[in-house]
Parts: sequence; C-alpha cells; structure tokens
Amino acid sequence: MQDWPLLVGKLIDHAATFHGDREVVSLACEGGTHRSNWRTVRDRSRQVAGALRRMGINPGDRVATLAWNTWRHVESWYGISGMGGVAHTINPRLFEDQIAFIAAHAEDRVLFFDLTFLALVEKLAPRLTTIEKFVLLTDRAHMPADTTLDLLCYEDLIAGEDPQAPWTEVPETAAAGLCYTSGTTGNPKGVQYSHRSNVLHAMAACMTDTFGIGARTVVMPIAPMYHANAWSIPYTAACAGAKLVMAGPNFDPPTLQKMILDEGVDLALAVPTIWLGMMQHLEKTGGNLGKLNRTGIGGSAVPRSMIETYDKLGVRVLQLWGMTEMSPLGTIGFPTTEIEAMPYEQQLDYRIKQGRGIFGVEMKIVSYDGEELPRDGKAFGRLMVRGPWIVGSYFKGDGQSAFDADGWFDTGDVATLCPLGYMQIVDRSKDVIKSGGEWISSIDLENVAVGAPGVAEAAVIGIHHPKWDERPLLLVRRKEGAQVTKESVLSYLDGKIAKWWTPDDVLIVDDLPHTATGKLLKTELRDRYKDYKLPTA
Amino acid sequence: MQDWPLLVGKLIDHAATFHGDREVVSLACEGGTHRSNWRTVRDRSRQVAGALRRMGINPGDRVATLAWNTWRHVESWYGISGMGGVAHTINPRLFEDQIAFIAAHAEDRVLFFDLTFLALVEKLAPRLTTIEKFVLLTDRAHMPADTTLDLLCYEDLIAGEDPQAPWTEVPETAAAGLCYTSGTTGNPKGVQYSHRSNVLHAMAACMTDTFGIGARTVVMPIAPMYHANAWSIPYTAACAGAKLVMAGPNFDPPTLQKMILDEGVDLALAVPTIWLGMMQHLEKTGGNLGKLNRTGIGGSAVPRSMIETYDKLGVRVLQLWGMTEMSPLGTIGFPTTEIEAMPYEQQLDYRIKQGRGIFGVEMKIVSYDGEELPRDGKAFGRLMVRGPWIVGSYFKGDGQSAFDADGWFDTGDVATLCPLGYMQIVDRSKDVIKSGGEWISSIDLENVAVGAPGVAEAAVIGIHHPKWDERPLLLVRRKEGAQVTKESVLSYLDGKIAKWWTPDDVLIVDDLPHTATGKLLKTELRDRYKDYKLPTA
Repeated sequence: MQDWPLLVGKLIDHAATFHGDREVVSLACEGGTHRSNWRTVRDRSRQVAGALRRMGINPGDRVATLAWNTWRHVESWYGISGMGGVAHTINPRLFEDQIAFIAAHAEDRVLFFDLTFLALVEKLAPRLTTIEKFVLLTDRAHMPADTTLDLLCYEDLIAGEDPQAPWTEVPETAAAGLCYTSGTTGNPKGVQYSHRSNVLHAMAACMTDTFGIGARTVVMPIAPMYHANAWSIPYTAACAGAKLVMAGPNFDPPTLQKMILDEGVDLALAVPTIWLGMMQHLEKTGGNLGKLNRTGIGGSAVPRSMIETYDKLGVRVLQLWGMTEMSPLGTIGFPTTEIEAMPYEQQLDYRIKQGRGIFGVEMKIVSYDGEELPRDGKAFGRLMVRGPWIVGSYFKGDGQSAFDADGWFDTGDVATLCPLGYMQIVDRSKDVIKSGGEWISSIDLENVAVGAPGVAEAAVIGIHHPKWDERPLLLVRRKEGAQVTKESVLSYLDGKIAKWWTPDDVLIVDDLPHTATGKLLKTELRDRYKDYKLPTA
Repeated sequence: MQDWPLLVGKLIDHAATFHGDREVVSLACEGGTHRSNWRTVRDRSRQVAGALRRMGINPGDRVATLAWNTWRHVESWYGISGMGGVAHTINPRLFEDQIAFIAAHAEDRVLFFDLTFLALVEKLAPRLTTIEKFVLLTDRAHMPADTTLDLLCYEDLIAGEDPQAPWTEVPETAAAGLCYTSGTTGNPKGVQYSHRSNVLHAMAACMTDTFGIGARTVVMPIAPMYHANAWSIPYTAACAGAKLVMAGPNFDPPTLQKMILDEGVDLALAVPTIWLGMMQHLEKTGGNLGKLNRTGIGGSAVPRSMIETYDKLGVRVLQLWGMTEMSPLGTIGFPTTEIEAMPYEQQLDYRIKQGRGIFGVEMKIVSYDGEELPRDGKAFGRLMVRGPWIVGSYFKGDGQSAFDADGWFDTGDVATLCPLGYMQIVDRSKDVIKSGGEWISSIDLENVAVGAPGVAEAAVIGIHHPKWDERPLLLVRRKEGAQVTKESVLSYLDGKIAKWWTPDDVLIVDDLPHTATGKLLKTELRDRYKDYKLPTA
C-alpha cells in the first residue's frame, strides 16, 4: 500500500478540492459576518505557511494563537501546521501568570492574536520573552493607531504569499498542535498533538455514530479552538466538506441562536453552561433553533432535565466525554438498537451516562491495586485509556505518573463501564473516598444529600480514619431560613444509599469554596478539614 | 501521542468489547442459519490464530481461503491476520489454471475452504504444491467420508486453542491480506493490503457520507469476501459494532430477499447484476425489501432506471466505485446540499456518476501527455489516484508501469471530475480512441449508436489512421430481421455527437465477441480488425 502520511494539510486540501465552494462563515471580531469557503481558506492557509517560512520559522517551532473561532484562526492553524510548525492555542481565560508561564514553557516564537486581546498582550508583552513577532489577526483598516507593541498586520503579512505553495513535508508523527491543560494543581502541562493523531481523530469524529458529520452538515463549534481544539471541528468539518459556522468572540444566547437560524446550523457543540443559557433564552423569548437537530455537549455532566428539554425542541443531545489529553474525544452517546427499544425513561438512564466507546479509544477500569474490574455498570474504578489520539507523554516530560507501564493513560476519573458499552463518570480519582479497600463516590453522595429538606448545597470529602483509611465527611449549606441538622440529613439519606456509605459526620456550614467556573473546590475543603477528627475514629 | 499501531485485530477487539452481543448471522454452507456475535467471533478468531501458530505458520506467511461469506470465513480472516499471517482470498470463479497460478505465486502454505469447493480442491491439489495443510471450514459431522485429500476439520482444529490469547504484534505496515486482480490480459497481479490500510479504510467506510455504518446498522455484504474484501464490510461492521448478515453461498434473489426481511437488513452491497435480479424478482412476486433503505452498488455502472426503480421502493442507491487495488473504495454517491436542492431529473444526472471523492483518496485526471486536466465535468483524462489504502506496488514487483514517478496509481480508467466533486468513468484507457491528440470515448459512442433503429448492439474500436493517429470504427449487430445500413446509422448519429466523433466507417456484423461476464471483448475485436483500412485513410 502507498506511503501516504496522515498530515493535517490533506484534510483542508480534500475540502478545497472536493468541496471548494462550501462555506466557512464567521462573526468577525471587528463586527459583521464574514463569508468565505474551503478553497479560499485553504489558499490563505498556504499563504500563512509562506509568511512563517519567510519569517524564519522552522518545522517544530511553536507558533501561538490567542484567538476566537474565526476564519483567520482556522487559516492560522492550517498554515502553522502546514509549514511544519506547532500551533499552540493559548486559553485567554487562564490567569496572566499561567499565560506567561506556558508561552515561555512552549518557547513560542510568534503570537497570532485577535483585537479583543490587544490590552492583554500589551500588558503581558514584557514577560513574553521568547516571542519575536506579534501578528494581529485583522486587516490594515483595523490596526490600532496607538500601541506599545511592534505589530504585524495579518492581512498585509500574507498578501504577497503564493496561495498554491505546497505544504512542508514532515513525518506524520511530527507535532502539529500544542494545548496546555488547566490543571487545578501545579503548573499547566502541555499536550502535543501530531499530524497523525489529528487526522485519525478527524476521521473518527466523522463516523456515523460519533458526530455524524457529512458534506450536508452545517456545524458550529461553540467550544473555542483553545479548548481542546474546538473538539476537533476545524479538522472534522474539512474532512467531511461540511459548512463551518463560527461565532467569533460571541457566546451570548441571542447571538448564537441568530447564527443557528441564519446559517441553518444542524449540529452545534458546547459545554452545558451554554446550553443552559440557551434554554432560558428560548423559554423567555419563545424562539426556536431552526434546523438544529443535535448538539454535542461535553466538558461536564449533562443534567437529565436538559436532555428532556432539548428532546421537546426536537434537538437530540449527544453527551460526549473527552479531555485535552485525548484530542479530545473519548466517548459519545449515540444510542444502540437495544437502547432505542427501551421506554423513554430507561433510555434517559443511558443518555445521562458520558457515552459509548468509539473505535480508537480503548478503555478499562481498574481497582485501587490496578486490577481490571468488570464491565457490569456497577463496579467503578480508575478509568484508563489507550489509543492513537491519546497523550503518550506530556510536553517536555512533565506528569510522568499519569502513565502506567503498558502505556495506559490515567484519566484521573473514576468510572463505570456497562455491558452496552457506555461509560459513566462517578467521581474524580482524587475526590473518591477510599474506605476499607472500597471506594465511595463523593459525587453520588452529594447528589443524594442535596435532595435533603433545607439543603442548598452539599460537599463530601474523605477524612483519615485509623481503621478504614478514609471515611466520608458531609458538609451542607442550608437554604436561607431552613432548619437542617445532622440528624435530619442522616435520616433523609437512610435507605437511599448503601449503609456503609453513610457519612461518619455531617457539618452544617455557612459557605463552600468554589473554583472560578463554579465547581466545588475540594482541595481547599480538604485543607480546611485536614485536622478534623471524626466522632467514629 | 501514543504509538497505537493500526492493526486489524483492534477492529474486532473493539466490536467484542463494546458490542459483544451484536449479532453475526450467516447462512451456512451446510444449510440452515447460524447465529453468533462479535464476542464469540473474536474469541474463535483468536483460536484460529493459535492453531496457525501451532502449525508453524510465521508472520508474513500466506494462508489462502476459498470460501463464501460466513462467520467461519470472517474468523479465519481475523485469525490469519491476527497472528501476523496474510489472508489470501482466492476467487473461486477464476479459471483453474489461474487458481493454480496464484496459489503458487503467493506461496500459500495453508488453504481454508468451504465444502462447496471440495471437488475443485481435490482436482487442483496436485498443482497446489506449496500448500501443506488443507482445512475444511466445517464441523466433524460434515467431514466427507471419502476424499483424496488429507483434510483437517476447522472446528476440531481450533477447539483446544485459547480464546483469549493476545494477537501477534506486528508493525501496522505489515501485510494483512492479499487479493489478485482478474486482469483480462496477462497473469493476475497480487495486491497486498496492510493492517494500516485496512483499518484506515474501515474508518473511512464508517464515515457518514461513505457507507454511513453505525452500531444500529444491519449490513449484508452480498459482494463476496474474495471480491475486494467484500468491500471491506467484515472490517467496517466490526469498527462500528454493526450487525453483520451474510448469505453464505447463496446469491439468488428469493434467498437474499428473505435474509433482508428476516434479519432487518438496512444496508446491502452488491454488483448491479444482483440488484437487477432482485428488481425482477420483486416485480414478479410483488414483494418488498423490509427495512432496507440503501444499497451500495459498484463493480460496473448503475443504469439510471435502476436508481429510479429502487427510489420507488424507498431504497437509496449509493453508486460507488472502487478497485481491488483500492481496498476497494474510491468514490461513493452520497449527495451534497447543492444536489439535493436540484429537481429530481437533474439529481439523477449526478447519481449516475460513480460518486464523490472521499477523504483519503486523492484523484486527478491527466491528458495523453500527463498534464492535469480541469475538473469541469467535461474534460476527460486518465484517472490517477493516491492514498493510504491504494496499492503502492503489486506483489513481487509486478505491473510497475501502473505507477508514475510521484506514486500516483493509474486506474486504467478515463474519467471526468466535476466541480461538485463527482467522478464519472468515460471509458477504459485501452479502449478510448486517440484522435489528433484528443480522446473519443468508445463507450459514449456505443451508448448513442445502440439507440439507432434496428441496432441490437454496438462496439467501437480505434483503427490506425496516418494523419489522426486513430479514428473510430463502429461495428453494429442488427436486431433480427431489421434493416440497418452504414448510412442509416450515421444519419441517426448526426447531431447527437460531436462532428469529429463521427465514426470513419460502420460495419454491420453478425456477432460481437464477449467475455465470460458478458462484456464486449475489445482485445479480440482489435485483433480481428488490426489490418482493416479505413476509407478515409
């Protein structure tokens, strides 16, 4: 068979050749709607590649982007990877210290960025010492008159380059992209995607039971390109010749809804928060979502009620699970024949799981001691994954402890696997309570406890116990004016959880600490209660 | 990213792990219906691998099969490739001399075969000198009492092997399969598929716009496994976790229809002849095709009327084009948004083409001199292809002239490419008439000429011309009792073809030579008329 390396340039070449007129539509950072197509985006990507070569960027060098989902960002991606460079997408929502850290760690040589981030880049510039060139992703008319930076204008930069110059030939295992995890502990760690992993992932994502993207699809990635590659859509849409719709810097429901209606979007992908906002917006305005018939939702668990609400709108929720370390796809929730034959309520029991395994992602769950556990939907253990688009080592050798001797990657999640092929996350490994060699899911306990009368929020952490290793401590925040006691909560839990899961103590607290994105900050809770003695100990 | 080689064993491991209970149903050569599932088929494949290892078969050795589409043939495939061997599917419809030739050329060490072929194998055995073991794909009860062969029984052979023994680890570029082309000239040439090419092809075939196979699909490959891998369905169905339905040695419409109805088949794949027979059967019986909603049809061009008839039955015809040299998929006819928006008759103009390009298959058409021609739907030239599941060289270095310096494979077809991404075959390269540096399609001319009053069949060949290089000679066979003259035919053609395409002579003949499968035998025609002088020369 022919030696035909899997290079990302071939994805957009396919789109340009067979679907050249298919549209790429974006809301621009400068305002207004920009219309292009795969042929033009490909040609301009080749111009970006030419400009980088002319700047002296070499294969393997990192070129950073700090940008929203737009045609220029897509062109930059393909241009950087296409000349052998590594497209490093920086998440603008990181703390400034983290941005400075990762730009230095990645040794980024060039930064492409959107107008939105001008003030941020001006402020950070003195700390971005490896960056030689700052390229503003705009045209001459929108270049700032007054800036402390020595700026290049994107449109001027690429204007003179050859739109037909061939891509640089690199091995398919060469790095094409780089993205840092936003770990809650320690410094962010870099994940390098290869050309091979991006192409295989795009092919898998085009499969019928994955995103089901074809040439007739109109897809809008709302997940940003700096968030695990916008879930690979800029690659996937090219692979299938789909129409690509992007909302630029906009995430508000009215703008997204208008884009969905105006462009005939039938598939859109975003985290639950976005879809919650959209639900509320539609409820208030009585509007609809036009041709939208399915959504990919990932990033955190999708509530059952959200699935039901979108079903009523004629929109199928495809819950998916992935990680920056997994390019990102791990599982997705297209039903099987068995599940479709079930009554609706029972179908939902499967649809609230994180999804079915797809070809290319091996999964297993292991116990405390590394023993593989049964796929019975009940046993839960550390979720280990292996596959061609899963990280084999972090950039520069960070985080070695996440890999076992056989190359399995430890996701940091605790999960169940069921006989129908579905995976469900039960807890984070670091939050699960290890009691007498068995595990108790802090999330499951919290989900039950939050239903107790008068309870506004619940958190469960493990406390050291001389006999059992750890036992659960339940912390509850009261609803305003409600009467809640340890006894009232324990009495509510009785019969709803396994006896041995019963918390050894319940504390009524005034507040619970949260991360910037609203998740419980368990590290701080564990720190607060590190000297706490359980009454049973 | 992880080094996760693309091995065919991983396809069936995925099916066994995530879709273990999904059925694999076959009509058996011994009669009756056999029901299994992916878990069992995988486990038994591993037993086949174990048996081959025990026989002393080494990675890289060829193991032949002469068998219909059944669960045992699928197990044999995965077992052979899974222990590092090369599964060589022999086409039982070849001439005996050709079978003896290819078994020797491939140096097959073992032959797995169906009961149906016992007499054939007994007869050929003295010439199958490289074959050390003959394995009959049946159980003890069906072993023949009286045979000249020293036979092994498949079920006995694998019974004691470990169903959990791991696959042999080989590089993804190692050969997994071997299939010989049935070329009309010269000896058959071998095409070796690699693990990588088979896995990439399976992933591409699962894409939404290709076969669109998912876990809910019930797929029946009617195309035999010895015919370009049954168009990859034994791999593709495993990759998606689809239900696999196989009709064993049966190709008659009533049996196929019953299987489609009984098993709920929604996708079936076969050559036009099969679908023509099915049309006639349904017309006669007034039956239907149950849940069947699409057919993949390839192997030769699909008539417009067949597409219309199946549309009326609620079955979408997906015309596809491929070659043994292409694993086999090259193009397939899922429509784009533009085509779906056209009036029905205009859609058919596209649907009679051979299909759209899919990611992984680069195509171009080139002139006489190797210059790339425009993709305007009009210009036609030699169709050249490149991609990861396309042959890079024939087995043992045969047929080198089919590859150009840049690795493009010459398909031997002359085709057009259109702006909407569709390819249409115009002629075979060797049959096209080269006139004054331009090409005339013999097939197009024949298709028009056969419409002339009184003409039963038409054939066009190129005759040497001192000025134009070649000019067309039209040979027509009259309908019984009809009056046909050179003048009546030329007068009919006038205005229906370009002036310069007009044949330089028309001969009325009593018969035209055909191949065994009913195609015009142009080699013989060219031979018959090699000394013919055109009146215009």
